[in-house]
Amino acid sequence: MKTIIQNGTIVTATDIYKADILIENGVISGISSHYAAAPDANVIDASGQYVFPGGIDVHTHLAWPFQSTGTADDFVSGTRAAAAGGITSIINFTNPKKGQTLLDNLQEWKKKGESSLIDYGFHSIISEYNDHVLEELPILADKEGVTSIKLFMAYKGELMVNDREMYKILKKAGEAGIITNVHAENGDIIDELIAESLAKGNTEPIYHAYTRPPITESEATGRALAIAEAAKAPIYIVHVSCADALQKVAEAKKRGVQVTAETCPHYLVLDESYLELQNFESGKYVCSPPLREKWNQEHLWNGIAAGQISTVGSDHCPFLFEGQKTLGRDNFAKIPNGVPGLEDIFSIVYHFGVNEGRISLQKFVEVLSTGPAKTFGLYPKKGSIGIGFDADLVLFNPNVSRVITHKKQYQNVDYNLYEGTEVKGTITLVLSRGEVIVRDGYVIGEQGRGKFLFRNKVSKVQSTVSAM
Amino acid sequence: MKTIIQNGTIVTATDIYKADILIENGVISGISSHYAAAPDANVIDASGQYVFPGGIDVHTHLAWPFQSTGTADDFVSGTRAAAAGGITSIINFTNPKKGQTLLDNLQEWKKKGESSLIDYGFHSIISEYNDHVLEELPILADKEGVTSIKLFMAYKGELMVNDREMYKILKKAGEAGIITNVHAENGDIIDELIAESLAKGNTEPIYHAYTRPPITESEATGRALAIAEAAKAPIYIVHVSCADALQKVAEAKKRGVQVTAETCPHYLVLDESYLELQNFESGKYVCSPPLREKWNQEHLWNGIAAGQISTVGSDHCPFLFEGQKTLGRDNFAKIPNGVPGLEDIFSIVYHFGVNEGRISLQKFVEVLSTGPAKTFGLYPKKGSIGIGFDADLVLFNPNVSRVITHKKQYQNVDYNLYEGTEVKGTITLVLSRGEVIVRDGYVIGEQGRGKFLFRNKVSKVQSTVSAM
Amino acid sequence: MKTIIQNGTIVTATDIYKADILIENGVISGISSHYAAAPDANVIDASGQYVFPGGIDVHTHLAWPFQSTGTADDFVSGTRAAAAGGITSIINFTNPKKGQTLLDNLQEWKKKGESSLIDYGFHSIISEYNDHVLEELPILADKEGVTSIKLFMAYKGELMVNDREMYKILKKAGEAGIITNVHAENGDIIDELIAESLAKGNTEPIYHAYTRPPITESEATGRALAIAEAAKAPIYIVHVSCADALQKVAEAKKRGVQVTAETCPHYLVLDESYLELQNFESGKYVCSPPLREKWNQEHLWNGIAAGQISTVGSDHCPFLFEGQKTLGRDNFAKIPNGVPGLEDIFSIVYHFGVNEGRISLQKFVEVLSTGPAKTFGLYPKKGSIGIGFDADLVLFNPNVSRVITHKKQYQNVDYNLYEGTEVKGTITLVLSRGEVIVRDGYVIGEQGRGKFLFRNKVSKVQSTVSAM
Amino acid sequence: MKTIIQNGTIVTATDIYKADILIENGVISGISSHYAAAPDANVIDASGQYVFPGGIDVHTHLAWPFQSTGTADDFVSGTRAAAAGGITSIINFTNPKKGQTLLDNLQEWKKKGESSLIDYGFHSIISEYNDHVLEELPILADKEGVTSIKLFMAYKGELMVNDREMYKILKKAGEAGIITNVHAENGDIIDELIAESLAKGNTEPIYHAYTRPPITESEATGRALAIAEAAKAPIYIVHVSCADALQKVAEAKKRGVQVTAETCPHYLVLDESYLELQNFESGKYVCSPPLREKWNQEHLWNGIAAGQISTVGSDHCPFLFEGQKTLGRDNFAKIPNGVPGLEDIFSIVYHFGVNEGRISLQKFVEVLSTGPAKTFGLYPKKGSIGIGFDADLVLFNPNVSRVITHKKQYQNVDYNLYEGTEVKGTITLVLSRGEVIVRDGYVIGEQGRGKFLFRNKVSKVQSTVSAM
Repeated sequence: MKTIIQNGTIVTATDIYKADILIENGVISGISSHYAAAPDANVIDASGQYVFPGGIDVHTHLAWPFQSTGTADDFVSGTRAAAAGGITSIINFTNPKKGQTLLDNLQEWKKKGESSLIDYGFHSIISEYNDHVLEELPILADKEGVTSIKLFMAYKGELMVNDREMYKILKKAGEAGIITNVHAENGDIIDELIAESLAKGNTEPIYHAYTRPPITESEATGRALAIAEAAKAPIYIVHVSCADALQKVAEAKKRGVQVTAETCPHYLVLDESYLELQNFESGKYVCSPPLREKWNQEHLWNGIAAGQISTVGSDHCPFLFEGQKTLGRDNFAKIPNGVPGLEDIFSIVYHFGVNEGRISLQKFVEVLSTGPAKTFGLYPKKGSIGIGFDADLVLFNPNVSRVITHKKQYQNVDYNLYEGTEVKGTITLVLSRGEVIVRDGYVIGEQGRGKFLFRNKVSKVQSTVSAM
Repeated sequence: MKTIIQNGTIVTATDIYKADILIENGVISGISSHYAAAPDANVIDASGQYVFPGGIDVHTHLAWPFQSTGTADDFVSGTRAAAAGGITSIINFTNPKKGQTLLDNLQEWKKKGESSLIDYGFHSIISEYNDHVLEELPILADKEGVTSIKLFMAYKGELMVNDREMYKILKKAGEAGIITNVHAENGDIIDELIAESLAKGNTEPIYHAYTRPPITESEATGRALAIAEAAKAPIYIVHVSCADALQKVAEAKKRGVQVTAETCPHYLVLDESYLELQNFESGKYVCSPPLREKWNQEHLWNGIAAGQISTVGSDHCPFLFEGQKTLGRDNFAKIPNGVPGLEDIFSIVYHFGVNEGRISLQKFVEVLSTGPAKTFGLYPKKGSIGIGFDADLVLFNPNVSRVITHKKQYQNVDYNLYEGTEVKGTITLVLSRGEVIVRDGYVIGEQGRGKFLFRNKVSKVQSTVSAM
Repeated sequence: MKTIIQNGTIVTATDIYKADILIENGVISGISSHYAAAPDANVIDASGQYVFPGGIDVHTHLAWPFQSTGTADDFVSGTRAAAAGGITSIINFTNPKKGQTLLDNLQEWKKKGESSLIDYGFHSIISEYNDHVLEELPILADKEGVTSIKLFMAYKGELMVNDREMYKILKKAGEAGIITNVHAENGDIIDELIAESLAKGNTEPIYHAYTRPPITESEATGRALAIAEAAKAPIYIVHVSCADALQKVAEAKKRGVQVTAETCPHYLVLDESYLELQNFESGKYVCSPPLREKWNQEHLWNGIAAGQISTVGSDHCPFLFEGQKTLGRDNFAKIPNGVPGLEDIFSIVYHFGVNEGRISLQKFVEVLSTGPAKTFGLYPKKGSIGIGFDADLVLFNPNVSRVITHKKQYQNVDYNLYEGTEVKGTITLVLSRGEVIVRDGYVIGEQGRGKFLFRNKVSKVQSTVSAM
Repeated sequence: MKTIIQNGTIVTATDIYKADILIENGVISGISSHYAAAPDANVIDASGQYVFPGGIDVHTHLAWPFQSTGTADDFVSGTRAAAAGGITSIINFTNPKKGQTLLDNLQEWKKKGESSLIDYGFHSIISEYNDHVLEELPILADKEGVTSIKLFMAYKGELMVNDREMYKILKKAGEAGIITNVHAENGDIIDELIAESLAKGNTEPIYHAYTRPPITESEATGRALAIAEAAKAPIYIVHVSCADALQKVAEAKKRGVQVTAETCPHYLVLDESYLELQNFESGKYVCSPPLREKWNQEHLWNGIAAGQISTVGSDHCPFLFEGQKTLGRDNFAKIPNGVPGLEDIFSIVYHFGVNEGRISLQKFVEVLSTGPAKTFGLYPKKGSIGIGFDADLVLFNPNVSRVITHKKQYQNVDYNLYEGTEVKGTITLVLSRGEVIVRDGYVIGEQGRGKFLFRNKVSKVQSTVSAM
C-alpha cells in the first residue's frame, strides 16, 4: 500500500520546502516535486499545510505510581491524547520496585505498553544502587534497546541516589552507550525547607514554590554536570525551569561536557503567580521544579534559540483535580507533583514559539522531534522527514485557530493548564508509520498498534549533533 | 536533461540517510530510495560516498586591493580553487572607493564576477559614512539582492568607521533586511601598539600577534554586539579567533542579541607559534586577527558544537609569499594581512572536525553550507539537499586520503598554510546547479558559468534558525 | 596649640575602639586610652559619638562651566556645604580650554581654589589630545602634585577623546604615577539615540534615561578597562550606576587590571522612576549616567560590601532648578546634566548603608575617606586616624536624627534630591587640620583657610590597597 | 609594668605610620609620635622595623587524630613553632568522637590547650548530626565563647555530613551567632575516583591529585554556598586551592551570600608538579585539596588583592615523613593528608606577597591578622593595633633575609615544604599580651601562658567587614 501526500510544505529541523511525499510500507520512500496520483495509492492533499515529523515526547509518566497515588492516564488514554496532539512516539518512565531487577521491571512495563496507540519506549528509573544494576546496564542497551535511564537527586527515601552512586551509574551507563536523565533538585535541602514550612503552618500551594527555590535546582544542576564531567558520560537534564539552572548548562557546554537540556511547555508559558490562585485552583499547577517568576521565561526561550536547550518534553504527569490534587488541599506537600501536558505541547510551543516570533519553524521541529530522537537513539528511524524514516507525520494548518479546553481533550484529567487559551494552528492529520491515526481532531487509530522502540546506543557524536 | 545520483549517503545539517537524487534543470526534483536509470538521464554512482550540499564560503577577498597591493586570486583562479575544494558559492567583499556610491561600486564588482566559475554574491564594504549610504541600503537589498554589508572597527583611515556611524548603518541595514558583517578589532589601540613596537625596533612577524592581543578583539567584539543590541539589528561577527571574543558572543546570545558568529579554519588548527618560524616562513601566517595561543582552539571547537559559532569562512585573502608577503620582511606592519584558505576549508574542517570526533557530519554541513546560506539570504535556494534546492552537490569519499600541498593547488599562491598535512576524505565530484564542474580533482567547468546571487532579505526568524 | 578629643569611639577603615585623640599643630600626635585635660589644651568631649576621619569627596564640579551654563556652587558655597556635610577635602575637576596647556589651566583653577574653606586638589580634565599633553603629565605629577587626570568617553566635540588618545594618555599617565578617571559612556551611541528621540518628539526627561541605556555604560566601561589593561595603567571608573557596568569591573579585577570603581549616593538610593515625576520635577534628577531601575541598587551595595567598589563620590554638579534645569523643560537634551549631593553624601551613605545594615561602620569610612585618599595619593596625610595624619575629623552622634531639606542647606541650589528624608545620625563637629570649622550644623571656619593638596604619585601597591 | 616600643612603623589592615606604642597590662594604651623612656617602662627599639599585629592562624590541627595516625605537633611544639613564626593566636580544630557531646569534647580540648604558649581557641568539628547537636550550638556560643564549627563534605564515614544535616546545622549556627567552616570537596566522587585509581594499580602520590580534581572542589564549594544561601547563614570556605572554586566564591558574593574565603600558603606558592617528585619526596606534599596546576596561583593572589579571599590559614596538619607519610609509600590513599606550615606562613605570604609586589603591606596584615580576627569573633581584642587591643605584636626587619630549613624549625617535623627558600624579612621580636615570647628567633616564653579565647558571636555586619 502506498500513500502520497501532495502539495504540503515539508519542515525539518533544517529545511522548509514544498514537495510531495511517497510512503511505502509505513516508510518514506520518496520526496519529489510532484507525484501523480496512482491507482494503488492513497492520496492526501496537504495544500496550505505544513508537514512536520511526528512529535516525540521523551518525558511522560503514563500509568506511573507516585506519592501515594498514580497518574491519571494509562497507555490507552495517554497515547490517544498524545496522538491527538501530534505526538507519534513517547518515551515513558518506568517505576522501580524495591528488590526488582531492571530487566524484570522492564518486562512489566513492556506489558503495560502493549495497549499503546503510538510507538513507545522506556527510560529505566534507577532508585536503588547495587552491583547488579551496573551489570544490567549493558544488557539493557544491547538486548532491550533501552538506552536511557533516569536518576533523581530529590525525593529521598523514594527515588534519590547519592553522588557516588550517581557517578558510578553515569560512568557505566556512558560506557554502555546509555544516556542518563537527571532530575536535578537538591532533595536534602528541599525536604528540610518543607519541614520548616509545615512546622510554621505555611501549607498553601505557593509554599510548594518557596520550598523549592531556584537555588535548589541550580545547585543540583551544577552538581549533576560536575559528576557527568568527572564520569566523562553523556547527561540529559530534564525540565530546566529557570535562568540560574540554564546558566549551569551553558557553563558546562563551554567546558565541553556532553549535556543535553530539556525544558517543558509550562515553564515557557506559565509562572509562579499561578500558585497563588484562589480556591485551590493553584493546586492544579503544582509540579517539580515549580513554576518560576515570569522573567525566567525569556531566558528559556533564548536558551532554545541559542541551542542551549535542545528538547521540550511535556513531563506529562497528570493527576485529577478532584480526588488527587485535592489530597493536598490542607498541605501542599500532599499535592501530587505533576501536571498534564502531553496533548497540548505541540500547540503551545508552536503558538508561543513560532507564531509569536521567538523561534523558527525549524527550531520548533528540532525541539519537538529531531532533538529528542537524536538524543535518545531513535534517530534515524524517527525525528525527521527523509528517505528511510518512518512515516510519522503531522499535517498542520497554520491558519485555523482553536481554543484549548479540557472539555475537548483526550487526556484523562478534569482540567487543562491552558484552559481558554486560543492558539493559531491546528493539527488536521496525524500519521504513524504511514497510517492515519488522527483526522480532524478525532483519534481513529486502534489501541495496541504502537510498537516498542528498540533504540540505538548513544555515542559522543550523536549527542553533539543533538546539541545543535 | 536529468541527472540521477545513485546510492549515496545524503547529509544535511540535520539528517543522514541513503537515497538517490534526481536533478532536473539544475534543481533537485526528487529524492528516493531508488531511481532506475533512464535513457534521458545521466547516472552518477555515489556508492560509498557522502553527498553534501555544496560548500558556501561567505568570506572571500578575490581580486581585492588591500594595503598597497592586491590579493593574488581573481575570479578565475579563485573560483577554480573554490570549486576544486567543494565550494559552489561564494560571497566576496567589494572594496570601497572614496566618493563612489555603493551601487556604482557594486556594478564594477558584478563585472569582475562575470568570469566566475561558481555562483557569487557580494558584501558591500562601507568605509565612508554619509547620508547617501543610508539611502542606498534599501535599494541594495530590494533592487540588487545584496543583503549584507561590512564594517570595520580597525584599519583607521582606510576602512574603519566610528561607533555612531556603525550604529546608524546597523540600524538602517536591519530595517532594510540587511545583515552587517563586522571586523571586530580595536583599530585605535592596535595602531598605537604597532607604532610602539616599531619604535622599539620590534619588527618581526611575531609582533604582529603581540600588537593585536586578544583584548583588542574581545573589546571590539563586545562593543559591536552592544551597538547591534542598541540598534536592534542583526550582526555577523567575522573571524572569531579566540576564547575571549567567543565569550562576548555567548553573553550576547544570552541577552537575545541577533548575532551569528564565524570562525576560520586557520584559527581552529594553527596557532601563534607559527609566527615564530624561522627565515620569514612566519610571514606566510600573518592575518588579522592573528593566530592565537593553542588553548583557544578547543574553545572554538566547543563553540561550534554548542551552536555559538554557526559558520566557518575561509577569509581567503591570499598574497604571494615572494613579492607580496616579503614586502614586510623587515617590518611586520608591511606584511599584507591575509592567508589563502578557500581551496582547503572543506578538507580541514572535515578532517579535524569530523574525523577527529569534534563535530558530527551534520554540524560540518551546517557550518560550511546551511549556516552561511541561512545567515546571508541564500536559503532555500542554496544550503541544503531537498526538493527545489539548486543541485549544488559535493560527492565525498571518506576513505581516501590526500596530502595537502601547494604544488597541486588551483589557488594562485606559492604556498599553502597546511603544506604536508594528510587529510582523510577526498572530493570526487562537484556539481553546480546540476552540472559537473570538478571530477577527481580536476576542474572541468567553464569560467563564466557562475551566476550572480540575488539574495533574500534577512529576517529575525531566519537568523534565529542560523543560530542553531 | 593642642586639642584633645575625649571619650569618642574612633572608627577607621579597619578598626573601632574607644580612645582619646591628641592633636598638635593640626596633626594627630597621640591616641590614648585617656588624656587628662591640660591648661594648654582645648578639650572636646566626644562621649557617645563616633570620631570619623573627615570625608574626602573626589568627585566635585565646583565652579564648573558645562553645557552652555555653569554649576551653581563655587568654592565658597560649595566648600561650606562640603564642610557642613563632613567633607574635609575635595578633589575638583578642572575644565579644559581649547589651546590652553594643562599647567596654565591648573594655575587658573588653583586661583579659584583660594577661596576654599577646606583642603582641595584638582583632577585635570584632558579633552584635547596633543603631544604637549603627554609631556605635561610628568610635570603635573612632579611639580604640581596633581596625580590624577580625567578622560571622557562621551560628550563628543566637547570633552570626548578617542580610544587611541585614551590609550596613549593612560599609558603615559601610569608611567608618571598618575591615575586616570574615566567617564564611561559611549558618547557616539548616545548622541545618536538622543537625535533619534528628539526627531520623534520624545522630549521629556525620562528620555534622558532611555537614550543612555545601561548597555552604553557597560560597553564603555568594558572598553575603558580593556584599554587600561593594554596600557598596564591604573584606572578609576567614576560613577558606576548599574549592575552591568559593575560586572565589567568585577571581570577586570579577576584579570588583574588595576581598577578602582566609584559609585554615587544617588545611584544607591534613587531610581529611574524619579525621571517620570510630574511638572518637570523629573528635571531635578537628570544626571549622567542616568538613574537606573531599582534592582540595580542591591548590586551596587553588594559591590561595596564585596570590595568591587572602593569609593563613593558625590559627583556634585549642581544646577538651579529655576533658570538652569528649566532650560530643558521642552527638551531633555538641554537640561544640564548633574545633581547636587556634596552636602548629604555622608548622611545618605551612613543612613542607608550603616543604619540599614548593608555595610559596616568601617566600610563606610573606607568608601568615604580611606579609599579616596589611597586611590588619589592623599594617603597617609588624609584618610585615616593615626599618628601623623592631619586632624581632619568628624564627630558624629548616631542617635540624633535630622530631616534633609534644601531650606537648611549650604549648597547654593533651590532643591535637594533627598528632600524630606529622615536620616538617623548627625554631625556635631568637623575639624580640619585640628581647627573646628563646623559646630552643630553651623559652618564657622573661614573661607580661604583651605590648602591646595599636593598629592603623592599613584603606585601599583597603593592602588592594590585601595582595592580592599 | 609598662612597655614602650619606639620608632617602629606600625602597619594595620588599613594604615602605615611611624609611631611609638605604649603597653600597659598587656594591652595597648597609647600610640604617640613619641614616648620618652620612663623608669617604670621597658623600652624596645623598633627603628627600621615594621610593627605588625600578631598573626592569627585560624586553621591548625595540633594534636589531631586523623586517618589512623595523629598530627606530629601537640600544643607544646606547635605553639612554639607558631610563636617563632609570628603567630600569637590560633584556632585549632577539635576532633569529634562518636557519641560524645560537643561540650564534653570541648572540655577535653581545653585541657589539651593548657600547655599552649600562645592564646588559643577551638572550632568544634561536627561529624555526626543529631538533635542534641543543634541544642548545643547556642550553649557553645553563649557559655563557651566557641563561635565557630566545622563541617566536612568529604571523608565519608569518618567526618562527612549530608546536605540536609549541613543545612540544618548552618541555619542553627547562624542563628546562634556561629560561623561554619566548610571543607568543600565532594567526598562521594573522590572516594570512587580513588577506588578506580587503586583498582588500576595507580598508586603513586600524583594520583592523589588526579583523584581529587578541581571539579570536585568547585562543585562542593558551589553547593556549600547554595546551602548557606538557603540557610541565610554565614559560611567560611577553608583552603580554597584553585581558580574554579574561587569563581564560586565570587559568584556567591555577588548574590550577597555572607561568605568568607581562606587560602593557604602552599596553594599560593607550590603546585601539582611537586607530587611528581622522585623517591617519594612527593609524599611530603600530599594534602587535601591537593596542590594544583601553577596557573591557579595568579588567580588566588588576585583573589586576595580584590578582596575575594579574606584570610590565609596554614592548614597546619603535620606528619613526619619517616613513619607517617611513608605509610603510603605503596598507596597514595594511605598517606596522611596534611602538610606543616604554621611556622612559615608569615614569611611565605610576606615574601611572595609583599616583597614580590602582589599585595600591599596592609593587605598582608589583613589576611594574616585582621581578617581572621573579625571573621571569628576575636575582634576587637585581637587583629589590629589600636587602643584597647591586646599587645600581640610582631617586630619585623624587612631588610634581613633568612633561608627556610627544617633544621632550624620548632615544628616537630622532619622536613619543611619550603626547604632552601630564601625569604627577605625576618621576625625579630614577638610579643603576646605585652610579653616578649620570641627574641631573635628564639622562643623564650613559657609553655602554658597561653589563654583560652572566649570569642564574640558572629554578626552579619562583622562578617561584611571581614569581606574587605
